[in-house]
Amino acid sequence: MNITNKDAHVDHISQQFNAELDDILTQLMTMGGLVEQQLKDAMAALKEGDSALVQTAIKADQEVNGMEMHMDEQCTRIIARRQPAASDLRLIIAISKAVSDLERMGDEICGIATNAGKLIEEGAVDESYTQMRHISDLVATMVRDALTAFARYDADLAYEVAKRDNEVDKEYKFAMRALITQMMEDPRTIAQSMHTIWILRSLERVGDHAQNVAEHLFYLVKGVNVSHSSVEQMHATLDMDT
Amino acid sequence: MNITNKDAHVDHISQQFNAELDDILTQLMTMGGLVEQQLKDAMAALKEGDSALVQTAIKADQEVNGMEMHMDEQCTRIIARRQPAASDLRLIIAISKAVSDLERMGDEICGIATNAGKLIEEGAVDESYTQMRHISDLVATMVRDALTAFARYDADLAYEVAKRDNEVDKEYKFAMRALITQMMEDPRTIAQSMHTIWILRSLERVGDHAQNVAEHLFYLVKGVNVSHSSVEQMHATLDMDT
Repeated sequence: MNITNKDAHVDHISQQFNAELDDILTQLMTMGGLVEQQLKDAMAALKEGDSALVQTAIKADQEVNGMEMHMDEQCTRIIARRQPAASDLRLIIAISKAVSDLERMGDEICGIATNAGKLIEEGAVDESYTQMRHISDLVATMVRDALTAFARYDADLAYEVAKRDNEVDKEYKFAMRALITQMMEDPRTIAQSMHTIWILRSLERVGDHAQNVAEHLFYLVKGVNVSHSSVEQMHATLDMDT
Repeated sequence: MNITNKDAHVDHISQQFNAELDDILTQLMTMGGLVEQQLKDAMAALKEGDSALVQTAIKADQEVNGMEMHMDEQCTRIIARRQPAASDLRLIIAISKAVSDLERMGDEICGIATNAGKLIEEGAVDESYTQMRHISDLVATMVRDALTAFARYDADLAYEVAKRDNEVDKEYKFAMRALITQMMEDPRTIAQSMHTIWILRSLERVGDHAQNVAEHLFYLVKGVNVSHSSVEQMHATLDMDT
């Protein structure tokens, strides 16, 4: 009986621990949802010339920052209390790295919203939005899929996300060249084009962070750190398993 | 005797553990030294129009990335094996966050070197260097002092580093306005000015990461997370203790 009680106790602790792991994973998804909505609002502000949405996107950053601080504390507390085995520890560390990337996405999107606000003031949203519509769609999909990959432990989807970052980089360079040509042809547009340039740069950075989130998950599932490798190496790792 | 033996064993483990903690702190300083040198090389490349130094700074990034991956693994292994108490755990987490900021500094400096290379090709280094000399000196000092604060557990110095980031932001805005005016006055300089703009932006980011490093140390020493607070709050925290 004594042994059974002890087992029940261990079981109880491990159930609590699993509940805690589920909880931080759920919080990561909630935080990801906040960032996704923030990006939607910032881009909709630009599309519709809506200053109220600019403010919504800027304010959302405080909530994102708050979640980062809270989850950081929670991850440290879980490690200190539960002294998890290596595999659980890697999950907690992957989550805490993803949290840090989401927080940085929030900062970039806050910058996007600020520059959108300036473009709205200057009545220059239409052309600017056209120039970044495509890259912003690509990046929004990367963020969503990186979170889905995390939720499903899906290394294949993580690879797809990382692969798509090359497309974002191409779009970014293309849009940037077009903007520089435009500035040279009509120097009166320079100040306004600079706002568009900062937005493009921030979108490209959000894509980088989405790629990072995908790579943290890939490492967790496949045990291969691809943070400084090419997508080809991710592909080779996937191939090895099949 | 048995108890003494056991004590000796515990003592031995704790000595090993302390040696491991010392080792990752030493590695953090080595990595910091690499990044400092990388920044010096990138800026010297620009000052002296030296393409070889451009390559040195770009190559250094691989070494910085390698150290990040190695230290990341090592921190995880120490936590998994030693199951450290909360205070040691916080030290390891602070080090691993500082490592991540140093790695991102390395990326930014790699970008600085790449743009310096383009300015050298275009024979436009002199003016560009003058425009960023002051901000680059400020940022280099921030990086050095953030590492010193970490090495000495010096929260006062960490506060000084964070405070100086406001100065960097002011210099950055000033230089940026001057560049935009120059582009408007002489549109032929636009492509070249864009390289200078990217360098300035990266320098400003390196300053942000130095501030982050200082804030990780501040949290470690003072137990107050100031990552999304004003420097005034850091100052208030220091005042409370005196």
